[in-house]
Amino acid sequence: MSTITLIGAGQMASALTFPLYENGHEVRLVGSPLDDQVIDRLREDNYHVNLLRTLHDGIHYYKESEKEAAIQGADLIVCGVSSFGVDWFADKILPILDESVPVISVTKGMLDYEDGTMQTYPEYWMSKLPEGSKQEIYAIGGPCTARDLADHDPSFVGYCGPKMETLHWIRSLFATDYYVISLTLDVVGLECAVALKNGYALGTALAIGMAEKAGDDGINHNNSEAALFQESVKEMLDLLKIVGGGVDNIMYAAGDLNVTVAAGRSRTVGLLLGKGLSIDEVMEQLKGQTLEAVVIATRTARAVKALAKAGKVKESDFPLLMHVNALLNEGATLNIPWTDFQKEM
Amino acid sequence: MSTITLIGAGQMASALTFPLYENGHEVRLVGSPLDDQVIDRLREDNYHVNLLRTLHDGIHYYKESEKEAAIQGADLIVCGVSSFGVDWFADKILPILDESVPVISVTKGMLDYEDGTMQTYPEYWMSKLPEGSKQEIYAIGGPCTARDLADHDPSFVGYCGPKMETLHWIRSLFATDYYVISLTLDVVGLECAVALKNGYALGTALAIGMAEKAGDDGINHNNSEAALFQESVKEMLDLLKIVGGGVDNIMYAAGDLNVTVAAGRSRTVGLLLGKGLSIDEVMEQLKGQTLEAVVIATRTARAVKALAKAGKVKESDFPLLMHVNALLNEGATLNIPWTDFQKEM
Repeated sequence: MSTITLIGAGQMASALTFPLYENGHEVRLVGSPLDDQVIDRLREDNYHVNLLRTLHDGIHYYKESEKEAAIQGADLIVCGVSSFGVDWFADKILPILDESVPVISVTKGMLDYEDGTMQTYPEYWMSKLPEGSKQEIYAIGGPCTARDLADHDPSFVGYCGPKMETLHWIRSLFATDYYVISLTLDVVGLECAVALKNGYALGTALAIGMAEKAGDDGINHNNSEAALFQESVKEMLDLLKIVGGGVDNIMYAAGDLNVTVAAGRSRTVGLLLGKGLSIDEVMEQLKGQTLEAVVIATRTARAVKALAKAGKVKESDFPLLMHVNALLNEGATLNIPWTDFQKEM
Repeated sequence: MSTITLIGAGQMASALTFPLYENGHEVRLVGSPLDDQVIDRLREDNYHVNLLRTLHDGIHYYKESEKEAAIQGADLIVCGVSSFGVDWFADKILPILDESVPVISVTKGMLDYEDGTMQTYPEYWMSKLPEGSKQEIYAIGGPCTARDLADHDPSFVGYCGPKMETLHWIRSLFATDYYVISLTLDVVGLECAVALKNGYALGTALAIGMAEKAGDDGINHNNSEAALFQESVKEMLDLLKIVGGGVDNIMYAAGDLNVTVAAGRSRTVGLLLGKGLSIDEVMEQLKGQTLEAVVIATRTARAVKALAKAGKVKESDFPLLMHVNALLNEGATLNIPWTDFQKEM
């Protein structure tokens, strides 16, 4: 039995308590500063008000103010904050951790810099550690909705990080017959693959919105959705190469694209834009929800534009991303640049 | 204006008459030996009894017995037979063609040989040509259902073949604002990508059947479908590398997987197997339909087994394909080998 402390009581971290608890571990779930009410209710009857599922009786719950106690004696720390909590994790949690205890993150996303560099969160956190720190940071990617995991629907994800031996040990803590895990040392490849998919899920879902808007026109509209899916895979593969990730990680990008187009907020944003709403109308309609797809698509487009300015890529090689960005940030009207998808390869 | 003769009046060849005719070409549609009744009805009122759409008034229709007249003066021949008509095309059509007129094929599939070699149809047809023939054979791949194309839903496909200059000319005949075409010289890559997707669409659709069987259990089951989608992309990428196709073609494999899981017979076979039916029960239920996914999955599995026997690959690297094959050909009971998906990469 090991002791695992999950920090951030969001949906995904909370869903991960299922395989961990069922594997016999001591599981501690710590709320972020925004999660006090979530923790209050969990302490009452184990019901998670956002995940909408009842966690196993036996999980230990902690509020943010009790985080030191939750970390005490842990064998593994899981970072479960959303991409909006990345700096909080860097500033408030990393400094209080025992550097010999590995961290694994389920936060999906990435940062961009003025020169077009894209950076994964594990890389960002590593850059915030004091010089000489031995802290190792691992990460989780791949297609996995929190509710399906909590419901024991078979799920297939990837874990990545600096040491294969540690990855094997971490997998042994999490893996069950319904939660299967491939391992890779290619952090940049896996993390970028699954970050990119958010913006492209939004892009692919445009076709779903266009089909809904067309209404009962007797057309299936499968081709247009597949066309955007295919262009998404192409652009993600090109982006993977740009950031230096292995092309094999396209499996995670495509798998995660599949599940995100099927369910989730990125789909909803794309669908509403596809129906012809402006981004302001979409934001109004989804008020109060975290819209990571918008952030990721914007960051990725910004990085591509910076790289194009430096002569390293061509904006015209990313017509779908550029149109999504124009919809999100430039007040553009929906007008998929279909013929720009035509390439010679 | 050019003259284009499509041979085989199946759904896809017939759907291709829409962009061709709208681009102002003379379009001739020739039935295979099985299409006499289809042609009779088309001559009456342009209605295609399998496509369930009315073709443009102005298409010229020919029965198989009139094929010589249809070929006369054509600038391009389109092979539109199903994979069950590949030998008929080789034996009865290729020999009567003017070798200076290019052929482009929409037939998806491939052949396997005892040593594990997989061969695309263009390669097979080339091997049947008399020595010294200058006949060029091009091919069409990518996610495109015939009905959506006929309905002008935006569609994005790939054309491949031996000469880029000719590919540009062929694209100029077909391309419209709703039918966009990328070009590649990588025939093996594109053709294998879109052939492989049939068997994997069947494999991915198993999850849809399992979800249907589970009924109204309150679980979305998006994770399990994405897990199979992701494993499919992984195995297809590995197979692409084995046959020597460029990895960029995974975009077509993934795009075509997306549309085939959404609609079509491969989906139906997988869905029924996923609900727990035996392959015999599935065949009985789908009596009279051409089931290319079954053929392709069987051929691919046979090739992998032969390659494994020769020590060139490991069967265990293709757990989904092997299970699909076991369901189709070895009387196995549905039991997705989830944990076998776990790999180190």
